[in-house]
Amino acid sequence: MTNDNIVVTSRVRLARNVAHVPFPARLKDERAFSVVMKGAESTAKALFEYDFYRISTLSDVDKNTLVERHMISSDLTVNNTNGAIIISKDETVSVMINEEDHYRIQSIVSGYDLDTAYRKAIEYEDTLSKNVDIAYDNKLGYLTACPTNLGTGMRASVMMFLPALTMTNNIAKLVKTVQRMGLTVRGVFGEGSDTKGYMYQLSNEITLGLSEEDILKRLADIVNTTIKAEIQAREALLGADRDGITDRVWRAKGTLTNAYRLSSDECMELIALVKMGAQMGVIEADISTLDKLSVMCQPASLTKVKGQPMTPEERDKYRAEYIRQNLK
Amino acid sequence: MTNDNIVVTSRVRLARNVAHVPFPARLKDERAFSVVMKGAESTAKALFEYDFYRISTLSDVDKNTLVERHMISSDLTVNNTNGAIIISKDETVSVMINEEDHYRIQSIVSGYDLDTAYRKAIEYEDTLSKNVDIAYDNKLGYLTACPTNLGTGMRASVMMFLPALTMTNNIAKLVKTVQRMGLTVRGVFGEGSDTKGYMYQLSNEITLGLSEEDILKRLADIVNTTIKAEIQAREALLGADRDGITDRVWRAKGTLTNAYRLSSDECMELIALVKMGAQMGVIEADISTLDKLSVMCQPASLTKVKGQPMTPEERDKYRAEYIRQNLK
Repeated sequence: MTNDNIVVTSRVRLARNVAHVPFPARLKDERAFSVVMKGAESTAKALFEYDFYRISTLSDVDKNTLVERHMISSDLTVNNTNGAIIISKDETVSVMINEEDHYRIQSIVSGYDLDTAYRKAIEYEDTLSKNVDIAYDNKLGYLTACPTNLGTGMRASVMMFLPALTMTNNIAKLVKTVQRMGLTVRGVFGEGSDTKGYMYQLSNEITLGLSEEDILKRLADIVNTTIKAEIQAREALLGADRDGITDRVWRAKGTLTNAYRLSSDECMELIALVKMGAQMGVIEADISTLDKLSVMCQPASLTKVKGQPMTPEERDKYRAEYIRQNLK
Repeated sequence: MTNDNIVVTSRVRLARNVAHVPFPARLKDERAFSVVMKGAESTAKALFEYDFYRISTLSDVDKNTLVERHMISSDLTVNNTNGAIIISKDETVSVMINEEDHYRIQSIVSGYDLDTAYRKAIEYEDTLSKNVDIAYDNKLGYLTACPTNLGTGMRASVMMFLPALTMTNNIAKLVKTVQRMGLTVRGVFGEGSDTKGYMYQLSNEITLGLSEEDILKRLADIVNTTIKAEIQAREALLGADRDGITDRVWRAKGTLTNAYRLSSDECMELIALVKMGAQMGVIEADISTLDKLSVMCQPASLTKVKGQPMTPEERDKYRAEYIRQNLK
């Protein structure tokens, strides 16, 4: 059990705005909007290959697929006026334009690697600040639409896979510990979302009065503690009832690969159980395939694979078929 | 859906006793016992290849295996004094010696074929009556240890597979209809036993005042009615929710072929669901393999396969392993 198994992705997000331009909610002026856009695009052009989309040009399926892949927030999908998105071809950097702020620069990397995520986000921000005049106050730091992002404008987060802490009812305790450290625990799709497939997002709450380094350090500390707790919980589960865990995991595999229809939630839960089993050494399974399927089986991504609209009933059958074909 | 799918086996059993010899419960005299035994064995010798066992020489596993295969009753297994069993090599005829009566001649055949079962039982009885003096009263008919068997001494029964009537909650209605006709419905292992794997035994209750032909006719009538009801119930289930039935059957197959441990009851239930699905055309499966596994997975039969004693926990794991190996 390495740390990479437990921390699925690491993410750093920077909120930035152009000085003297109204925040997106009040940004009506086409010329001002053009300043915001051009700053973002010329920065991207200087750094990497990328795709650019205006939200208004995307279908619902395309928008929701991007949400399911954590490239954009669902808040951005409703901004058909001036919302846009830049995504680097390697998908490690994405820039939401005119979500709550003019720029939400985000870097997501696999596994436990906050430093790389931070480095990539800052690299974009450095170049961006040469292209546009970023709103900054010497006392408050970076100015943002919502005061909770003032200061560093940075949110660092990790997505953690915590099945054993969930099964042993230790998540409430984790949430308390995390909050005491000034951090927060959320579901897979951010604020207010449900937990699915034993996945939890740990992130900093405070952006003001701490340096970027402090934020990353605090997060790393709680992540390390959580990794240890999850490993201990897994060992405890195996010690208490190895046969029971094995049976549960094997049955999950059986249902996953034999069901005639599968809801999105059940599918994620079953994939998570098999993944846990593989990590615990009680079943053989390719974890990267499971991770891919976990994303692909979400409604919009699945519709994109199918290439045509489906009723929810058809989608549940197609999901089961897709899993059967891709998981042997 | 042919009738053979619904009637799994047909059975005729004749209770007979040697005249002027005490019934088994009071049979202490070794010489009289020898008369009973020799009559049975010389009859078998004249008719077919057979195996003969005295109950006292059989291990518990061997005795219980015979019970699981419906060759002997569990009542016989406790008669270590003078109990014995003759089984024809083709297993269509078995004779329990000194169960409740001196002889319980039984013929079981596959599918819906009471005539063959009756013919085989009567063939044995004909020859037997030439070898020993059978207790018979002109007014009462064949004399038996228990008055409920007086008269013909015959019990005819069929084992029926009724998943759709079970799922649509129509079994209580069936039991009432059957009782009104002077017949009875029991679980898989006879009187007082539970129903397992959607299997029900329909048999005559009355042995006195009816001819053998009448008994067979009455049973055949109710069996035909029940077959029709089961077929209708299956069509209704498919009509109402084909996808739901398919999903349930496919998941049962998934659990059956992937579980790490399986109890005997769960195993029978899952096998029955897959068998139902195969008969209804929603899954491909070899029904004869399923029927064999349904017997082999019972505790004693499984222990015999393994060749060594197992704890219940070990047996549940071995059962799952055995199913995985034998059901692809």
